[in-house]
Amino acid sequence: MSKSYPTKIEIREVGPREGFQSFHAVVSTSEKLKLIDALARAGLKEIEVTSFVRPDKVPQLADAEALVNALPAHAEVRYTALYLNQTGFKRAEAAPAIKNRAWLYASPSKTFLKANNNTTPEEALARVAEWCELFNDHGKDVHGLMVSNAFGCAYEGPIATDVVVKLVNTYQAELARNKQTLREVCLADTVGMGNPDSVEHIVTALAPLKIPISLHLHDTRGLGLVNAYAGLRSGVTIFESSVGGIGGCPFTPGASGNIATEDLVYMCHALGIQTGIDLASLAKAAHVAQSIMGCALPGRVYKTFSQSS
Amino acid sequence: MSKSYPTKIEIREVGPREGFQSFHAVVSTSEKLKLIDALARAGLKEIEVTSFVRPDKVPQLADAEALVNALPAHAEVRYTALYLNQTGFKRAEAAPAIKNRAWLYASPSKTFLKANNNTTPEEALARVAEWCELFNDHGKDVHGLMVSNAFGCAYEGPIATDVVVKLVNTYQAELARNKQTLREVCLADTVGMGNPDSVEHIVTALAPLKIPISLHLHDTRGLGLVNAYAGLRSGVTIFESSVGGIGGCPFTPGASGNIATEDLVYMCHALGIQTGIDLASLAKAAHVAQSIMGCALPGRVYKTFSQSS
Repeated sequence: MSKSYPTKIEIREVGPREGFQSFHAVVSTSEKLKLIDALARAGLKEIEVTSFVRPDKVPQLADAEALVNALPAHAEVRYTALYLNQTGFKRAEAAPAIKNRAWLYASPSKTFLKANNNTTPEEALARVAEWCELFNDHGKDVHGLMVSNAFGCAYEGPIATDVVVKLVNTYQAELARNKQTLREVCLADTVGMGNPDSVEHIVTALAPLKIPISLHLHDTRGLGLVNAYAGLRSGVTIFESSVGGIGGCPFTPGASGNIATEDLVYMCHALGIQTGIDLASLAKAAHVAQSIMGCALPGRVYKTFSQSS
Repeated sequence: MSKSYPTKIEIREVGPREGFQSFHAVVSTSEKLKLIDALARAGLKEIEVTSFVRPDKVPQLADAEALVNALPAHAEVRYTALYLNQTGFKRAEAAPAIKNRAWLYASPSKTFLKANNNTTPEEALARVAEWCELFNDHGKDVHGLMVSNAFGCAYEGPIATDVVVKLVNTYQAELARNKQTLREVCLADTVGMGNPDSVEHIVTALAPLKIPISLHLHDTRGLGLVNAYAGLRSGVTIFESSVGGIGGCPFTPGASGNIATEDLVYMCHALGIQTGIDLASLAKAAHVAQSIMGCALPGRVYKTFSQSS
């Protein structure tokens, strides 16, 4: 059984955005800031703090501007914010504390694109030029492509690796026409339909791109951390995860969050892989999240640390 | 990355014993029977239904005799019951429905042995002859050795592979003196301190025994299913797990149950490994367990099946 793990990995924390966006209650800005500060103190170097969406659609994130203008100063931390459309992108750019990279978002699922973004694959692709121009207006080159439902979709079931590879190649070609190129592809297992074999398969299939392939894994079917392990074995060095495994909705059977950042960190350290994160401090951050959300979170290892530790 | 999974695995279900023994409330015998029946109908071929312990010490299992005398008839199912001492073994043998194999129990942790069994490693070893005689009185040869804390211990921290290998060899030698031999070694990660590397390491180290090495994995630190995956890659074909991931205490931070049977089954099926279990029926059993315990269980995949499915 051959094996080679990366020496170190990067973790992008998405808990404050994923967790609070799907939480049944509106969390106060000051509580969100407390969690973000705890995450930064634990050593997270990139934290997605909110999403610039319509306040009437997602009241949980209606404080996006107030939040990003009050972020705790941590020189080494890159704060980012999700955007779903150009209005959201511009709102994020207007916030001095937010240092977004220029991401394009795509999905191999037609049904998801229609339901979620009211668009077709063709329309989405046709908008790439427009996005490139917008990025350019803000002095940015395209960074990466975020592929939602890269392993499967709640509407269409499992998605074949070939379909994802073709999608990535199509975007790469369209970017070339705009004198841009991909510098990262992030595969999001939006509804937890990946397995260790499909992770290895798709990472290997995208290897010819010679750019980092990152993973954003949900733990809907229990395989989140197994898939991260398969990713490590396949050479993946960038992971997105949520403190405490928040995201989805902890109160809704069937909906589920990302892999827990602290469980991922625990696994990496156990395997001798560096993360730059202090596990005890991260467990403390998970306890902060638990106390905000008022219930035990899906993450496992933080529960072995006392709340005050 | 070479890989070869087993074609099929055996799963021993320990949920009714693990889950109810550590549950804060006493569950009625009829509710326990309902869960056991649902598990048998899902295709589980071996179910540990209770433990013969002192009713005053573990009131949750005070109905052991009543339960084993009312077990639903499923010709293909082997019902077993845990015993911690010779009185418990005899009570189990007195029950016609219980078909226990002759297991010896050991632990590489001196502190655990003292705290849990009030014995020393030397005293425990000295009792092997007595156990062999008792097994013999009931027409049984020794089946296997169950090693608690095979990866680590709440008292002593991580346990080195060498220590476990030495323990197994010592028992093997003592059994040889009694004209017995081990036919299985079950490694229990009692407090979830294993990781994929230590699983691979210990399974490989025990390979010269040329007997099945089985795994009983707790998910205390989130690596339960990752460790099961590492086990599959190392050729392990027997796993113990709990429906819904029950065990430990779902209400006590830090205590945690086994890997969830249905998550293990889901993973195996996704990797093309046969289990003989119907996942939808097993998810139904997990919903029965959830309804008995009155809260969402740690298992993930059952929540993607509707309660009535």
